Amino acid sequence: MSALIYEYPLNEKCRNYLRLSDLLLQIKQCRSLSANGQAVALFKALLDIIELLERCDIRSDLAKDLNIEKEKLAAWAEVPGIDVAALSELEQQLADLSQQLPRSPRFGQLLREDKLLVAVRSRFAIPGGLCSFDVPQLHYWLHQPKANQQQDIDGWLSQLQLLQQGLELQLTLWRDVGQFQPQIAHNGFFQDDAAHTHIIRVRVPADQAIYPVVSGNKYRYTVRFMPVDNHDIGNVEFELANIK
Amino acid sequence: MSALIYEYPLNEKCRNYLRLSDLLLQIKQCRSLSANGQAVALFKALLDIIELLERCDIRSDLAKDLNIEKEKLAAWAEVPGIDVAALSELEQQLADLSQQLPRSPRFGQLLREDKLLVAVRSRFAIPGGLCSFDVPQLHYWLHQPKANQQQDIDGWLSQLQLLQQGLELQLTLWRDVGQFQPQIAHNGFFQDDAAHTHIIRVRVPADQAIYPVVSGNKYRYTVRFMPVDNHDIGNVEFELANIK
Repeated sequence: MSALIYEYPLNEKCRNYLRLSDLLLQIKQCRSLSANGQAVALFKALLDIIELLERCDIRSDLAKDLNIEKEKLAAWAEVPGIDVAALSELEQQLADLSQQLPRSPRFGQLLREDKLLVAVRSRFAIPGGLCSFDVPQLHYWLHQPKANQQQDIDGWLSQLQLLQQGLELQLTLWRDVGQFQPQIAHNGFFQDDAAHTHIIRVRVPADQAIYPVVSGNKYRYTVRFMPVDNHDIGNVEFELANIK
Repeated sequence: MSALIYEYPLNEKCRNYLRLSDLLLQIKQCRSLSANGQAVALFKALLDIIELLERCDIRSDLAKDLNIEKEKLAAWAEVPGIDVAALSELEQQLADLSQQLPRSPRFGQLLREDKLLVAVRSRFAIPGGLCSFDVPQLHYWLHQPKANQQQDIDGWLSQLQLLQQGLELQLTLWRDVGQFQPQIAHNGFFQDDAAHTHIIRVRVPADQAIYPVVSGNKYRYTVRFMPVDNHDIGNVEFELANIK
């Protein structure tokens, strides 16, 4: 049976990681502008990324975390039968990224100065503010040949490539390690110690009309399952993985 | 040669008309959610419409304008050779809409109360705020079967149907009447009296790397053509239509 995974960050750093990773995926999915509306989604993701990157310096956090992963690999090398070649390739990747990240220019700086993005950004929060009379240069751009648009989009994406590589690697390593365990939420409620957990992952069968609302900090967290249609939910069987 | 049309409202009422019409088109284009990113564009359009409708009571403006159109039709009936059947059908349409509009419940009221839209709205302005940990009910909804999603979207759209019909008819009638005339913007600059003009329409060949920036009010307006790449623009030949 198909399942839905909900991820919840238990600290500010991981909240930024998950948000940025989500937005980068959105840009990637919309980059060919092959369907109506994708331009709106693309610009929202780009502007949101610009704003998030203004608020935090993610380079050092990410470099530190990737370095920790690299150190963890040393223990794996002792395990008999391990694929040494794959391990050393991963180690190299981690070493490269954790060196490049702190030395790269601040992410998003050139996006913040891009003329079209500046114009779109100034009107994006106005309801209906992307009309041709609000941002005529956007109207012009949207009617440019596909090749020109792709060139601009690839230029914007290239500013975020290192960030994307680092985030993807870090999140993949975390997600691969955290094993799902069956749990029961009595009357839809579950709580546990957070103890060094970065992110919790909740897996729920897709056919259940419920969704989890999580709140937590570095000490404790609670999961409360909410019914979609106000029905009574009783005990909920779900799966939980802690990423430490 | 293909051309780009830029429309500029010269009063608040027409600014709302154009914005709402643009957003309604966006909802229509994204309603099948057949491509990635369309959900973001759909929700942005719905939330923007909710916000615009909170600020203005468009029903009475639109009913009044459609009634004026109906009265204008009387003059057409005298023209020899006119298609009397088409004319009377249009007259009926205008009469129906201008009667229904003021009697309809305030547009957008039920959208404002919709649980999912309320949840999405509360997080939409947060950068990356549509993650599964921000709006878990959206994450749930996005993984629902297409049929359920369509039912919800059609429900939201049905709240806006009368608005959509009225706006489309009004804007079509206006656009059909305003004839484009060739004009020259000396050194990229053009100005004229507004004299009862609601909307001006500027048509520019698509291969020219310029876009018009218009400012104006009910007395005067100016069009200033801006170069996309900081080149010198000199005199610009373009076409202009005034909608009165």
